[in-house]
Order: sequence, then structure tokens, then C-alpha cells
Amino acid sequence: MNQFTATYTDQYQLSMAQVYFKNGQKDQQAVFDYYFRKLPFKSGYAIFSGLEDLLEILSTLRFSEDDLQFLKEQGFEKDFLEYLKNLQFKGKIYSVKEGDIVFPTRPILQVEASIIEAQIIETILLNLLNFQTLIATKASRMRLVAGDATLLDFGLRRAQASGGYFATRAAIIGGFNGTSNVVAGKDFDIPVSGTMAHSFVQSYDDELTAFRDFAEGHPENCVLLVDTYNTLKSGIPNAVKVAKEMEGRGQKLMAVRLDSGDLSYFAKESRKMLDAAELDYVKIAASNQLDEHVIKSLLEQQAPIDIFGVGTNLVTGDPDGALDGVYKLAFSAGKPRIKISESIIKITLPHKKQVFRIKDENGKCIGADAIGLYHENSIEEMHHPFEPYKSMSLKHYEQEALLELVMDEGKVLQKKRSLSEISEYSISRLSELPIEYKRFNNPHIYKIGISETLKQERDGLIKMQKNKI
Amino acid sequence: MNQFTATYTDQYQLSMAQVYFKNGQKDQQAVFDYYFRKLPFKSGYAIFSGLEDLLEILSTLRFSEDDLQFLKEQGFEKDFLEYLKNLQFKGKIYSVKEGDIVFPTRPILQVEASIIEAQIIETILLNLLNFQTLIATKASRMRLVAGDATLLDFGLRRAQASGGYFATRAAIIGGFNGTSNVVAGKDFDIPVSGTMAHSFVQSYDDELTAFRDFAEGHPENCVLLVDTYNTLKSGIPNAVKVAKEMEGRGQKLMAVRLDSGDLSYFAKESRKMLDAAELDYVKIAASNQLDEHVIKSLLEQQAPIDIFGVGTNLVTGDPDGALDGVYKLAFSAGKPRIKISESIIKITLPHKKQVFRIKDENGKCIGADAIGLYHENSIEEMHHPFEPYKSMSLKHYEQEALLELVMDEGKVLQKKRSLSEISEYSISRLSELPIEYKRFNNPHIYKIGISETLKQERDGLIKMQKNKI
Repeated sequence: MNQFTATYTDQYQLSMAQVYFKNGQKDQQAVFDYYFRKLPFKSGYAIFSGLEDLLEILSTLRFSEDDLQFLKEQGFEKDFLEYLKNLQFKGKIYSVKEGDIVFPTRPILQVEASIIEAQIIETILLNLLNFQTLIATKASRMRLVAGDATLLDFGLRRAQASGGYFATRAAIIGGFNGTSNVVAGKDFDIPVSGTMAHSFVQSYDDELTAFRDFAEGHPENCVLLVDTYNTLKSGIPNAVKVAKEMEGRGQKLMAVRLDSGDLSYFAKESRKMLDAAELDYVKIAASNQLDEHVIKSLLEQQAPIDIFGVGTNLVTGDPDGALDGVYKLAFSAGKPRIKISESIIKITLPHKKQVFRIKDENGKCIGADAIGLYHENSIEEMHHPFEPYKSMSLKHYEQEALLELVMDEGKVLQKKRSLSEISEYSISRLSELPIEYKRFNNPHIYKIGISETLKQERDGLIKMQKNKI
Repeated sequence: MNQFTATYTDQYQLSMAQVYFKNGQKDQQAVFDYYFRKLPFKSGYAIFSGLEDLLEILSTLRFSEDDLQFLKEQGFEKDFLEYLKNLQFKGKIYSVKEGDIVFPTRPILQVEASIIEAQIIETILLNLLNFQTLIATKASRMRLVAGDATLLDFGLRRAQASGGYFATRAAIIGGFNGTSNVVAGKDFDIPVSGTMAHSFVQSYDDELTAFRDFAEGHPENCVLLVDTYNTLKSGIPNAVKVAKEMEGRGQKLMAVRLDSGDLSYFAKESRKMLDAAELDYVKIAASNQLDEHVIKSLLEQQAPIDIFGVGTNLVTGDPDGALDGVYKLAFSAGKPRIKISESIIKITLPHKKQVFRIKDENGKCIGADAIGLYHENSIEEMHHPFEPYKSMSLKHYEQEALLELVMDEGKVLQKKRSLSEISEYSISRLSELPIEYKRFNNPHIYKIGISETLKQERDGLIKMQKNKI
């Protein structure tokens, strides 16, 4: 649905690029790290999402004629515009696999490219990865509590405009089963489902006729919305009538949907009425301002809900509207680079790096990732990034390198995976994480460490910078 | 940037449409109301935004060949798909002017069309209007407190994916002056601005050389980011040096930008240092997690900040990620329609309607809108929608009809206004609203009333529905 050109960026990327271009630094190679600082939703983990979209977009990203005309009007110079005309992203990308569990302050993805290319793609990279990672994480939390229930995305109408398109994709990665969003279903090959609105029932003079017409039109996947007038006095009795008529035609009513009121109470009462009519196969779907906490509570109350339709809180990531992902320079023009800050956790890590997931002898995740220089094949001793006396020997642990080359010379190296493959991978990775990291209240904090060599490199650069000021 | 086709919708719209089609109800005329129930941000008003985008998209909305192929695979029937192939929105839209101040529970926009057309556009209508209205409102709150300061949108990297494109447009309507978002600037004719990132300074061995190179490359609109190493010991002294060098070339440094630390303190100290160097014309820009409350506080502390760059909290509408706008059936097949609910404020208003803004003899807004039937030219007595003994005579007030026909037979009737025209209109309408409705804490509640005739119609339908159950 979306067509991105290279003007999907912040103006300052182009302002900087023109300076690099004019000063002959355009081919200067740089490494940037993508990472975030804070987990959303007070979650103990996040689900990395958006990578394949990003790679696909980068592989075809260009400035259009229109773009160049606009930039000319903005005062960019002729020779620079000529350069932009032929510009393509020709760099390398190293990344964690899409769907993996990720944690704050360590690189999830690294870009290695000419500094101009690396800067121009910064905005679109952050825009796509921050948002999809946010939503996949939100979805994953609902999947954690929903057990085997079906989770459907109903959010497009309340989404942040066309952001809803990507929200749907990320929801599937996080563990949702389907969506109401037709265009996302079509483009991302996601199961699409949809039934009826209150307006359908209202547009008839009576509910029963509305239900009958709908059942005739959709005998295969008929879901009746039962709360337009009165759920227990009108909606369920009419649904039971129609279900029986459908049985007479050899058909089965798939489900009833509750969209208001106390969902636990109405689900239980509806279930009783359906069962009493020997309609135990008719499922109950519920929607209305759901999120992971409401779903958890409903299931703890043993509300017999089989299908949850989640809208606003899923697709906008309520209450956290953004992941605070950043893109920081680690290396350029042959030298490691650092940004120092008053706030110690904002000090960046220099150099191209590798990240290792630490596992015990049984391959079980111990709750730590360690960051080393890229050429380090494993890390002997992992240091706390800032607290001086905290370190841990990793000699007897397995170490899985997480960053792999996924794009080279601007070409995607990996075969595109289906969303269900990515989602399955995500669920299997999440299953390796001990339960303490998954609880909603004060989850255990996943450890991030750095290698001795990286620590020395960083500390040396900090000292050098401090001496200059 | 965005290409919308008619599959930008929820599947249930199509499921319902197929039933209407098969039952010969496809040309049945319907009226739907768009309104929201709750103001975001504890605001006393909202700014209606998104209308022109919506109308433009509706006027060209079609199902593509791809769309129809996908729907075929989804099991939709052949004659229905044939019908969709030629479907265009041919209805009427009545709307409040884009940029006007709007309030909960009364129609902002009405769609009058065949029930199929009206349903299919529901999702895109809600998606675009809900989000842009949310963001224009957020932006307007910052404009209210920012006085004459320049407000710039820096949010694309943290936006909800391509939702950021529309966020930028809405921010301008709410009173922002420009954006960093190049593609939105290009498509919506918005002033675009951008300077440098920390990475630019880091990519040099020293800050002064970085500043010099940048100033040479951008003498006209040079803004130097001064907090990469140390704002007061390094950033400002280097900026002063470069400003003096620029003066020697007959150029002027435009601004310095602060992006971390205590913005009030650093702005004051920076101002002193700049003024001491006779650089009183150099402006101070500030960014870093700003919102209306932080801007208000900074200005109350008399922080000498001329330009505010706002990102995440603007473009995601933090802390409210969505406006709860709904689209409710009011009339179909020749009859008024109502949805009743346990929750009294969720009961809908039947019939095609008009909304009047009530003003005193001097044309000053008294803080009330009154809803009548569409053919009512004015309202004599306004009733509280649900509290029985509350009413108010409107005989001596002026009444301005707010809903006007903006689309007929699917064609846009009004000439497209520039964003700055819409923004100016918005600011003038907001200036008519008494200050009590604009304060951040417990703003005065704007009154919504209904006419005697509408009240009788609604109450009659409620009674009729209750009798049926």
C-alpha cells in the first residue's frame, strides 16, 4: 500500500549530507547502531519487528524526480542533487533475526555504509523498526495471557492513520491470529475476518431478520453481533433461533460476538443459554477496549471467551505510543566514535560490534546478552556497562552470535520469511526466556554486559574526549 | 505518499455489503454520523482535522484488480465482485469546516449515501479523521502556551510508521510552523527545516571543525547543535567562534540548538554567553521530550527559547494514542435509526441533523452547540440530551449552522484550502472560545443540547425499541 521514496526522512539528514558531499567525505564509511533505551509497557522483553519491511524498502529506495525538484526549491545545490539522483543504499546491514526477543541498550541492528547513505536512511529505519517492535511487543503480551484463544486485530479505525497497516503486520509477529484490516491481509498474507456492525442490525426493523439475512449470506463463517438491543433478552435468543434454522440447512453458526457491557458476565450467561440449546459448538467472541490486562482478568474469571477482538490498545500501543529507539554513530572515517553525556546510560558504545546471547550447557537462556567487538568470537568475561565491580565469567556458557549480515551492497541476503514463520520463531525464542522475565509486575531485568576489550576501548575514548573539553 | 484503495477497510464492511447486495438493498440510502465521545488530553476542545485528505481520497477511491482478486480468494461472490469493480463513492458529505473547534457527542460530519458505499468508507473515514483531529488538538495546546515561539515537528522517527505523514499535516493545522519531515513538507507544502545531528559532530575529530564545515555549507540557515560534548564549556564557545567568523563573511548564525539536560538552565546560560559576545540575534532552539506542559513550564521559568522542536509526544498524541471517534447509523431505508445501550451516553441520535453554534448578540461563542433535525433552521429551546429538567431558551441568541455540504455525488464541492489557511481559520475559531475552555486543568465543559423535535423523535424510538424486547 505504501510507496516510500528517499524523502521519507528528516531534512537534517540532507543538510548534513550536502556538507559531507561538498567536503569530499561522501564515501567515508560509517557504522551506526540501532537500539532502544527503555522497554515499553513495563515489559521484561520486546519483540523485534519490522526488519523485512525495512530491507525491502531500502533495496528500492530512490529520490524521485518530484523529490529532486522539491529539494531544488529548498535550496539544495545542483551537484549535490545530481548525486542524490543516482543515490541508492549500497551498504551492509547486520541484524538480529526478526521476531527475536530483544532488550534495551544493546545493538539490535547495525548499518555499515557511506555516511551519507547511512544518514539518509536513519529516519525511515527508526520509523519502521520503533513502531513495529512496539506493537509486536504489545501483541506478544496478549498472546502470553490468552492461551489458545484466537486473537484478532480490529484496530484500523482507531490506528494512527496508515500506521495501522504496519501495526497489523507486527501484531501477527507478536502472536495474533488474524485481522479485520483487508489491505494488510492482502499485502502481508494474513487471515482476514469480519462479521457485522451494529449498523447492520439497526438497518433492519428487527434483529431476527437481520440475523437471518446475514446467516443466509455467510453460512460458512457466520458470527452474529448480539448486543445491539439487549444481549440476553434479544440477541442470544435470536442467535439461537438462527443457529437452529442453520442446523436445519446442515450449516453451523460459527460464533456470537459481545461488544459491550460486562464481558465476563455476558459471556458466562450467553454460554449457558447456547449450551442449553445444544449449541456448544458456537463460539463466543468479545471485543470492546481490550488489552493484555483485561484479557488476563477475563480469563482469570473463567469467562468462556474463545475469540478476542482487540483494537485501539493494540494498534496504538497504549499506554506507550512509541519505542524510544535511537541510531548512534559508532565508527566513521577509520575511527571509533562515541557520544558522551551527563547521563551515563546515554554514553554510546564505539566500534562495530557483535552481540552474544548467553546460554547454559542445556542451551537455556540465562537472561543475559553480552556485547563485544565485531571480531571477537566469544567473550570470556562480561562487565556491567557502568558499575565498576560487577562482572561475570562466561567461560562455561554457550554464546550465540545474534547479529548476522542480512543486507550487502544494498541487496537483501535472506529469503523472505512468511509472517507465520516469523511469528513461530518469535514464540519459540520467547519460550526460551524464563518466566520471571515475562510477568507483568516488575519483571526480572535482563542483563547486558560488555567485553573487556570493548570496555577498554570505550573508556579510552571517554578519557580522550574529557581531556579535550 | 500514500495510495489508498477501497480495501483500506475492515472486512466486515464487505461481509455486510455482500448481504445488502444479494438482498437488493444496495441502493438503500443511509445517513451516518461521525462524532467522538471523549476529548483527548483532558482538553476542553478539539480541532477538527483530516477532512480535505478524506475528501480527496474518497473522490478517487476504487477497488483495484489486485483487490478484487484478493476478495475472490476470500470467498466473495462473483456478481458482488463485479459490482465492487464499478463501485465509487457517489454520496453526499456534510461537514464542519476543517480546523474548527469541535466537542464530544455531536455530529462533526454526516455521510448520506447508499448503505454499501457508506459502510465501505467507514474505516478510512474514522482512521483519517480520528488521528488528525487528535494530533491537531495536541498541536493546538502547544500553540496556546508557546506564544510567538516557533514550533517545529521533529517526530517522524518516533511516529507510528507512516502515520507520521498525517501527523505532520495535522500539526500545522493545530498551529505548528514547520517540520523536519521532508515528504510531508513536499506533499502538503509545509516549511521544512533541519540542521545537524550529534553524529555530524561526532564524525569529526573536533567540534569546532564540524561547526565550521556546517556553517560554510549552510550560511543562510545555520543552526549548530551544541550539546554533543559539553554545552557551556565546548558547544557554545565553539558556536560563538563560528558566529564571529560568519560575521566576518557578512553572514549570520541563525541559532544554536539544545537537545539534552536542563533546558531552562542551559538556555539561560547560553543566552548570557551569546549576548556577552554581542550575538543577541542568534536564536535558541530546544528539543528533547517536549510537550505542552514542558513548554509551558519552560516559558514560565522565562527560559529564553525561541524555537521548540517537538517529536514523540506530538506525533503520537501522548498520552492519548487515539480519539474515540465513532460512525453511527442515523437513518436508513426511509426510517430514522437508533442504537440503544445500557450506557445512556452511548444512545445515538436518529435522523439527518444540523448543528448550530450558539453566539450572543456580539457574535461571541457562549460555549454551547445545539443539535436539531436537518430541516430546522434554528432552535428555540435547547434540551440537555439526557437530564430531564435542564433546558435553555435560545431565542435571543445567534445560531450558526456548522454542517455544510462539502461533497455531492462523490465530488468535492469546496476549493482546496492551503494548510496555512486552515490553520488561520482554526486559530480564529479558537480565539472565539472563552479562555475557561482552554485551560489545562479542569477546563469548563462545553454544552451540547438537542432541539425539542429531535428529543421527541429520539424518545419515541427508544420507547419503540424497549417495547420490542
